[in-house]
Amino acid sequence: MLPEGFTPQKEGLLEGVPELGIGMLGYEFMGKAHSNAYRTIPYMFWPPVVRPRLIAICGRTEEKVSEAATRYGYEGYYTDYERMLQDPRIQVFDNVTPDPMHCEPSIAAAAAGKHVLCEKPMGMNSEETGRMLAAVRKAGVKNMCSFNYRFMPAVRLAKDIIDRGMLGEIKHFRGSYLFGMSVRPGPGVAQRRGGGNALLPIGSHVIDMARFLAGDIAAVNAMMPGGTTVAMVEFASGAYGTIEANTSCPGKKNNHGFEIHGTLGSLSWDLTDLNRLQVFLVEEDPASIVGGYRNVLVTEAVHNYIRWEQIAAREGSFLVSRAPGQVWWPQGHIEGWEHGHINAIFHFLDAIANDRPVAPYGATFEDGHRVAVISDAIIQSAAEKREIVVPA
Amino acid sequence: MLPEGFTPQKEGLLEGVPELGIGMLGYEFMGKAHSNAYRTIPYMFWPPVVRPRLIAICGRTEEKVSEAATRYGYEGYYTDYERMLQDPRIQVFDNVTPDPMHCEPSIAAAAAGKHVLCEKPMGMNSEETGRMLAAVRKAGVKNMCSFNYRFMPAVRLAKDIIDRGMLGEIKHFRGSYLFGMSVRPGPGVAQRRGGGNALLPIGSHVIDMARFLAGDIAAVNAMMPGGTTVAMVEFASGAYGTIEANTSCPGKKNNHGFEIHGTLGSLSWDLTDLNRLQVFLVEEDPASIVGGYRNVLVTEAVHNYIRWEQIAAREGSFLVSRAPGQVWWPQGHIEGWEHGHINAIFHFLDAIANDRPVAPYGATFEDGHRVAVISDAIIQSAAEKREIVVPA
Amino acid sequence: MLPEGFTPQKEGLLEGVPELGIGMLGYEFMGKAHSNAYRTIPYMFWPPVVRPRLIAICGRTEEKVSEAATRYGYEGYYTDYERMLQDPRIQVFDNVTPDPMHCEPSIAAAAAGKHVLCEKPMGMNSEETGRMLAAVRKAGVKNMCSFNYRFMPAVRLAKDIIDRGMLGEIKHFRGSYLFGMSVRPGPGVAQRRGGGNALLPIGSHVIDMARFLAGDIAAVNAMMPGGTTVAMVEFASGAYGTIEANTSCPGKKNNHGFEIHGTLGSLSWDLTDLNRLQVFLVEEDPASIVGGYRNVLVTEAVHNYIRWEQIAAREGSFLVSRAPGQVWWPQGHIEGWEHGHINAIFHFLDAIANDRPVAPYGATFEDGHRVAVISDAIIQSAAEKREIVVPA
Amino acid sequence: MLPEGFTPQKEGLLEGVPELGIGMLGYEFMGKAHSNAYRTIPYMFWPPVVRPRLIAICGRTEEKVSEAATRYGYEGYYTDYERMLQDPRIQVFDNVTPDPMHCEPSIAAAAAGKHVLCEKPMGMNSEETGRMLAAVRKAGVKNMCSFNYRFMPAVRLAKDIIDRGMLGEIKHFRGSYLFGMSVRPGPGVAQRRGGGNALLPIGSHVIDMARFLAGDIAAVNAMMPGGTTVAMVEFASGAYGTIEANTSCPGKKNNHGFEIHGTLGSLSWDLTDLNRLQVFLVEEDPASIVGGYRNVLVTEAVHNYIRWEQIAAREGSFLVSRAPGQVWWPQGHIEGWEHGHINAIFHFLDAIANDRPVAPYGATFEDGHRVAVISDAIIQSAAEKREIVVPA
Repeated sequence: MLPEGFTPQKEGLLEGVPELGIGMLGYEFMGKAHSNAYRTIPYMFWPPVVRPRLIAICGRTEEKVSEAATRYGYEGYYTDYERMLQDPRIQVFDNVTPDPMHCEPSIAAAAAGKHVLCEKPMGMNSEETGRMLAAVRKAGVKNMCSFNYRFMPAVRLAKDIIDRGMLGEIKHFRGSYLFGMSVRPGPGVAQRRGGGNALLPIGSHVIDMARFLAGDIAAVNAMMPGGTTVAMVEFASGAYGTIEANTSCPGKKNNHGFEIHGTLGSLSWDLTDLNRLQVFLVEEDPASIVGGYRNVLVTEAVHNYIRWEQIAAREGSFLVSRAPGQVWWPQGHIEGWEHGHINAIFHFLDAIANDRPVAPYGATFEDGHRVAVISDAIIQSAAEKREIVVPA
Repeated sequence: MLPEGFTPQKEGLLEGVPELGIGMLGYEFMGKAHSNAYRTIPYMFWPPVVRPRLIAICGRTEEKVSEAATRYGYEGYYTDYERMLQDPRIQVFDNVTPDPMHCEPSIAAAAAGKHVLCEKPMGMNSEETGRMLAAVRKAGVKNMCSFNYRFMPAVRLAKDIIDRGMLGEIKHFRGSYLFGMSVRPGPGVAQRRGGGNALLPIGSHVIDMARFLAGDIAAVNAMMPGGTTVAMVEFASGAYGTIEANTSCPGKKNNHGFEIHGTLGSLSWDLTDLNRLQVFLVEEDPASIVGGYRNVLVTEAVHNYIRWEQIAAREGSFLVSRAPGQVWWPQGHIEGWEHGHINAIFHFLDAIANDRPVAPYGATFEDGHRVAVISDAIIQSAAEKREIVVPA
Repeated sequence: MLPEGFTPQKEGLLEGVPELGIGMLGYEFMGKAHSNAYRTIPYMFWPPVVRPRLIAICGRTEEKVSEAATRYGYEGYYTDYERMLQDPRIQVFDNVTPDPMHCEPSIAAAAAGKHVLCEKPMGMNSEETGRMLAAVRKAGVKNMCSFNYRFMPAVRLAKDIIDRGMLGEIKHFRGSYLFGMSVRPGPGVAQRRGGGNALLPIGSHVIDMARFLAGDIAAVNAMMPGGTTVAMVEFASGAYGTIEANTSCPGKKNNHGFEIHGTLGSLSWDLTDLNRLQVFLVEEDPASIVGGYRNVLVTEAVHNYIRWEQIAAREGSFLVSRAPGQVWWPQGHIEGWEHGHINAIFHFLDAIANDRPVAPYGATFEDGHRVAVISDAIIQSAAEKREIVVPA
Repeated sequence: MLPEGFTPQKEGLLEGVPELGIGMLGYEFMGKAHSNAYRTIPYMFWPPVVRPRLIAICGRTEEKVSEAATRYGYEGYYTDYERMLQDPRIQVFDNVTPDPMHCEPSIAAAAAGKHVLCEKPMGMNSEETGRMLAAVRKAGVKNMCSFNYRFMPAVRLAKDIIDRGMLGEIKHFRGSYLFGMSVRPGPGVAQRRGGGNALLPIGSHVIDMARFLAGDIAAVNAMMPGGTTVAMVEFASGAYGTIEANTSCPGKKNNHGFEIHGTLGSLSWDLTDLNRLQVFLVEEDPASIVGGYRNVLVTEAVHNYIRWEQIAAREGSFLVSRAPGQVWWPQGHIEGWEHGHINAIFHFLDAIANDRPVAPYGATFEDGHRVAVISDAIIQSAAEKREIVVPA
């Protein structure tokens, strides 16, 4: 018997909201970030336009995947992804495995008719990503490569500023992703994050950001000393710039950032201060005494990742009647790193459930493939010590 | 029939983890922040030491409270909090109502034997908070006033630095909470956030922060022009400082911050850059060439809100075997405003479930009452234009 | 015989430029700063409108004053200021002595018909400054108290922004001057800058800045623990604020700054970043996406201490035909601390030589006296632990 | 007859201080900066170790050069530099002409036995600078190329930190010099600073800074779109980096800066905040909770451009008995852009007068030539779109 006065939750508000079954492959850092997104979307993006249902998580080590299922609230788990892909309750395949496992499972998922979300870098090289792109095209499924930083409110603001023409013509892009030790490694201890090639794990973010904000890249000229990537790039537009990815920069901690200069203004941003965009707009009045970079805290209602105009543009949607700023927190309440993933995954689920485009705000497999083509050109350039024109 | 290869989630890992039934009163901004905490704790603080169960949410307007129950996943709702307090499934009463409703429901909840979490300011004045404190003492229930900023990793780091004696003797505390318009109000439109008294809504945060970091306040001397609070304070230790709360500072957006000076070092922090603590330590070597404030990005494993030492100190806990840094994200991945609430509520639930103290990291009703006593002294001082000794 | 092709310097350009004989009392830190100003003005403020002539420097210790005369290029020296005041070649008496010696020599100088420039604080209390003010009024000489920070380009920009009404009505002023150790004092070593009362040496700067930007102060309420000054102030306009002066803040080094909030905007500034003014202007367009503090590097031609409009307003002056930005360096070339003194002293010499007003940009003895009256009220308030209305 | 009590300046302190006759070619922006240095050195670097005497200034337009002589206090002027080079009173030739005039007059000056100070870039290409270097070598005269930023206290601190090994092995250098418009150019108005090649005027500063801090450059790979320079560089040490020089970055104003990463630490600096060096040192203690970039305000006595150790090392010098920090201002009093030139020119005059080496702190003609060789390689690389090994 229910306690007196207690009314059980009514599901009415959720009636008719499309549900999407999720099957995730992998459960480490990115598994945590994506699972957090699926669990947060239902109450944070409100009124609801899509509801993820956590069907299954998959991994080879049963003990671990079982714990992950319990932890994140998946209804169950698989230890074989091919079996998971047969599960008819699953519409969305989310690939959060280590980089070398991005390719084949994603292709298999597309072949099984699942919509595919794949972590970045999309593949190990453009041969892989080319096949992945062909697979989703052939299957006609929605697809997104998880370049989550596109969905930071400050990056979205940068995109909007550029799209409105407020910077004029883009001329110069400076992008970097720098990491480094904080603590001196002891004897016999390998340096954390010190080895390996920075290009795919973090350089891919810079390449995607460059393309997102300044357009496609036409030619590259690169050095790759000791796993670091330093590259000069020419954009298709005639703009130019630099891309740097380095995991040996003491004191740097996830410092992914850009500086972008146009004929009428400039922007800069850094991931460790992700709620702020620095915006300079050339003054029209030569007597202006207050020219300077504006330190824009991107937390106003007009800044929200889902902007009012976009919402209002959904004619007939019950979102139209809502005030702006429903998502996340009021002005001045800063957002954390995980919001990029949450926003990105909402965007993808909404695209599937309500048949909206993933592009241009989300990175499609076309974008993920393009990043791989550019990465390959960077590797070739570094090897041959000359400029390489990026294949079309 | 289950799909082939699918194993349903096993609950084994959750066996024996204490469960706490939650009943929340209110559902607006703070209801969203607290509900988000209850929904995030189960998978973010892992392995689990407590599991909240969202029994009911309560509000007078059925349409709204029903929507909130659906949105945040409460099992049901009440429209009468006194009835909710009779619900035996509920162990924790969470009061997120507007300030004038903090007092009586919290007292009733204590009387009903519920542990009580109450939003700040704890009451409208010290008469109210005195009665609230008496009620929880009499009932012997756990209690916490939701001064969430204590649980920001950077604030916790500040506390640790002070407790280790790294600043020497604290001498000077400068605390403020400043808000303001970004957009000029149109004709006939009242200024957002412009009116009313800043002391209780935001000044209470500054008073609590002052006490948390610099100790109790012995005397105050204040002005309260136009709803603003400007106060000078003397601490019991002999330290001194200023407290300012103002909602009419254009361009300020949730700028809660402090600067604290001791004989051996200084700290400063701002809520809109909440992942950083500025730390200055007086050099011992007069020939040091690198003295300066350190810009500490508080995202290292050693910085996590639940620090390794504390966890390791829980003998017999299965947490002991875990590596540091399990909570939240790896270094350099910044945390958002809501993490303060999530961390705070985890702290309270853990205190209840595992019989650990709320103090000194959490603010008890004793702390909440003390803030009210000091607020009353500030009001009296402003009225009488003289220093008021804060009653013991 | 001159070398072939060599033409000796022609004095023609200097003909008719008024010359002012300088007699300085004191030769330590401020003597260096002022002497540097006199030596820099002739070629930096060009075309010249006044030429200082360094007649004599005065001090009691002959060895030191003789060295100072040689070092700074004074034509000679005195060891008795009363004798120096008889020197008919001297028109300007510059008092850079320790604070207790500001009063009597300045009065004597006025009585001797010299224009008087006196370092801050103008006197030890308002009794002294009252007599000093009476003396210069009676003598009818030009007078300035060396509140040099008024002449920083960023402070001048702040003044201009306020005077143009861009901030609306000023509501809140937060001013401070904080100093502290960088190095731990060894055993038996007294703390540098640690002792004494901060009010006169540095608090006077904050009081003058408050009056310069926000108008006169009507009432004060202060604490002075351990030589520190913490005060709440009410302005004649109804605005309010805080004033803090403290020499025990580790890591702070000459951090004189202010934050000022009006109904339409806000400003902030810090002396250790003196070329920048942070400017927030409330947006008129609610859909603006780029609201934020502007980081204004105050080095544009329109920012120069001597602004074009002022120069152009000198009808008949040969300055009129000059382009703006003649003084100091091109945009982006930052100015140092000493420029405040150089600009201030130029302002005073120009006022004397060309009969222009010292006020409102320069601080007159009236301003210096007013600062002392307010300082006295602060001391009284701290002693009596109550608000003191500042005497008119 | 002298006034009573007046003692004329005694020259005793200056007896024996070597005097150097200066002859300057050019009188625009750099003429102002250098003349300011010559006029400031005699009283700022005290006790004096060298005294410049401003013999003559030279330019083709008599009206202008005559005005400059009067303005800056040169004893006279020439309109033909070859005649000036015959003036036996002149020991130092200072070439502050536009870049294309750096070569021949400097060579002629060396041939005439004058010590030569030449503005940067030293020549238009390495053919010119090679001849200039040969000329000073043949003549055996002291020589310096005016890379003034080496003499900023923060840059000197960076050099000291590196030389002490505090950064470990240098791995990555990121240098840039960015300029841009603040105001939109009107119709028919050419963009300020927008045209021309950025490499020589500002890129040369970045190349010199790279060499000063990270050692010589072995190979370059560059793009030069629209007058901009973007280059990747390999250092002889195996370190790598980027060099960017761009005059089309809106909002940037003289933003010359670097970021430098070693195995044990990192540094960064920007010319528009020239008194601060950001210093990160890898912590030795893994439990350190205060790791972070230190914001070092480079104004302590231990930071002065002329450091105490260097002064003390001059045995027999009367400087030895002086306390550190004599030069410029006390801690916390920030220095302006012109101090770089003043410090640099003092360094050069002291090197001449007291037979001390210009290198390694000053840039010799060898350094200036090397910058030109690297610049030529950059131009070739951009033309050929491939890496160019810099000739030895």
